[in-house]
Amino acid sequence: MDVVGRLRERQGGFVLFALTPPRLKTAPERVAEIAETTMERLRPLGLDGLILYDIDDESSRNPSERPFPFTPTLDPAEYLAEYLAAWQTPVVVYRAVGKYGPDDLGLWLSSQDAARVMTVLVGAPSAGAAPTISLSQAQDLRRGVNPDLLLGGVAIPERHSRRSDEHLRLIAKQEAGCRFFVTQVVYGVNAAKNLVSDYTYQCAASGIDPVPIVFTFSVCGSMKTLEFLRWLGVDVPRWIENDLRHAGDTLGTSLEQAYSAAVELASYCRRLGVPFGINVESVSIRRVEIEASVELARRLVEHLRSGA
Amino acid sequence: MDVVGRLRERQGGFVLFALTPPRLKTAPERVAEIAETTMERLRPLGLDGLILYDIDDESSRNPSERPFPFTPTLDPAEYLAEYLAAWQTPVVVYRAVGKYGPDDLGLWLSSQDAARVMTVLVGAPSAGAAPTISLSQAQDLRRGVNPDLLLGGVAIPERHSRRSDEHLRLIAKQEAGCRFFVTQVVYGVNAAKNLVSDYTYQCAASGIDPVPIVFTFSVCGSMKTLEFLRWLGVDVPRWIENDLRHAGDTLGTSLEQAYSAAVELASYCRRLGVPFGINVESVSIRRVEIEASVELARRLVEHLRSGA
Repeated sequence: MDVVGRLRERQGGFVLFALTPPRLKTAPERVAEIAETTMERLRPLGLDGLILYDIDDESSRNPSERPFPFTPTLDPAEYLAEYLAAWQTPVVVYRAVGKYGPDDLGLWLSSQDAARVMTVLVGAPSAGAAPTISLSQAQDLRRGVNPDLLLGGVAIPERHSRRSDEHLRLIAKQEAGCRFFVTQVVYGVNAAKNLVSDYTYQCAASGIDPVPIVFTFSVCGSMKTLEFLRWLGVDVPRWIENDLRHAGDTLGTSLEQAYSAAVELASYCRRLGVPFGINVESVSIRRVEIEASVELARRLVEHLRSGA
Repeated sequence: MDVVGRLRERQGGFVLFALTPPRLKTAPERVAEIAETTMERLRPLGLDGLILYDIDDESSRNPSERPFPFTPTLDPAEYLAEYLAAWQTPVVVYRAVGKYGPDDLGLWLSSQDAARVMTVLVGAPSAGAAPTISLSQAQDLRRGVNPDLLLGGVAIPERHSRRSDEHLRLIAKQEAGCRFFVTQVVYGVNAAKNLVSDYTYQCAASGIDPVPIVFTFSVCGSMKTLEFLRWLGVDVPRWIENDLRHAGDTLGTSLEQAYSAAVELASYCRRLGVPFGINVESVSIRRVEIEASVELARRLVEHLRSGA
């Protein structure tokens, strides 16, 4: 069963790989080349699906200086339609709803093939921004124009550490139609365990079937990438930072850490009996970091297939 | 090499078991029985040593109501001398320095056989209490009257989470003569990893050899014991609490959790190349919880001996 089928049945056990589309200013022939190289790199892994992020300028969310400058990227829907048509598995397309008008969003939602595309709708980055359409309006729109199109939501373990109510937000999103959740990058396994634990027991108490939570992992090849992860809101434990800072091979150490964290969370979710998936993203655009991400995904596909 | 020899060489790899002496009001023949039963229970484990706690009324440290009422216990030095003479391994005797006058403490320190006894000096429970002798005076006293007597100190990962300077406190204690540290009960592995990581890298930066940190683990057989752990200042992660609350077999689940936490920390310390020991204590005096603690220690001795 492919990942769309699994999600319809509330089953986990899949591995996705997340891509950020090329920069908006990239020449079309170069975009085609990038897409081709990416597909070649990923095909041997036997992934269950891709995620395409929709990058928004999040400077309204975080007043600190962004460690890597923001550069607008290609619309992920366009990138998929025009450059990744040859890719075989289902694809999750993110939509930063604040970037689109209701008509454009409605048109896109209604024209998607629900057997091949899923979407994660993401709200505006901060309460200060005035989007043309709110997250809940966008959720209603999806239900109205293409109810079969699988909808996912964002899950943030770090927010759970601060406010202890992220599990209730997930359940509210589930009631608004979400059939899976994708976390931001996980470095602190404890916060992720706390969230999935509270979510699972709350579902049981409310008589709701839990849906798969997809945990995202990423390697970090330099202190600059670490700084960027923190800017994005990822809690990186001190011991992980120390080990990376003092490692002879930062990237190799990070790959081991991320693999261990994913295996630990997978084992915890199995014990808890809750469905889960794994997503690997490359936060950096450096070639070595992308290759290490691909290696991480390869090892995690292997781990999940072995049923360990 | 026994644990005293190992500590003199800054080597870890040992397992201790911590006991709280019987209540002060217990009849002497009953104390003798308890000591006999305890030694019979522990002898088959092949432990490297015992720890005897010196219980102080910590209500000045924590204004919340103590979940279990405080009852004064026998002086651990007396318990060792009069009831545990038949025990074969070295013993770490805690001294809550605020409870003793300088003369008594000096007399006890000077009369100990450094091949068999070690001590952990513990400061007064709060800044409000006015002890007859301060922790640093007691440390100086030990150096003056019995410099061979191995001195240990207390390490609190939770304090490191709040203040980020516990590793500097450890190094200061080391300069005051400490040759090992014993943590309070560890439930949150992340805080313990952060502390040992910061301590290790700080030692390296300062050209100091790290000394063994002894991590303490304990099982929890009921929500009442969990409440008591929290009262004692132990951070118990939400997911651990949830799993215990919903477990059919709370004690068995806790035993697995504690074993996994100890194995994870042991593996982390090995990777870091820092010496460590393991201590198991029974926080509760219920017989089933004591037996589960003994089982935890048995499995951890086996784990460390296997060199895994």
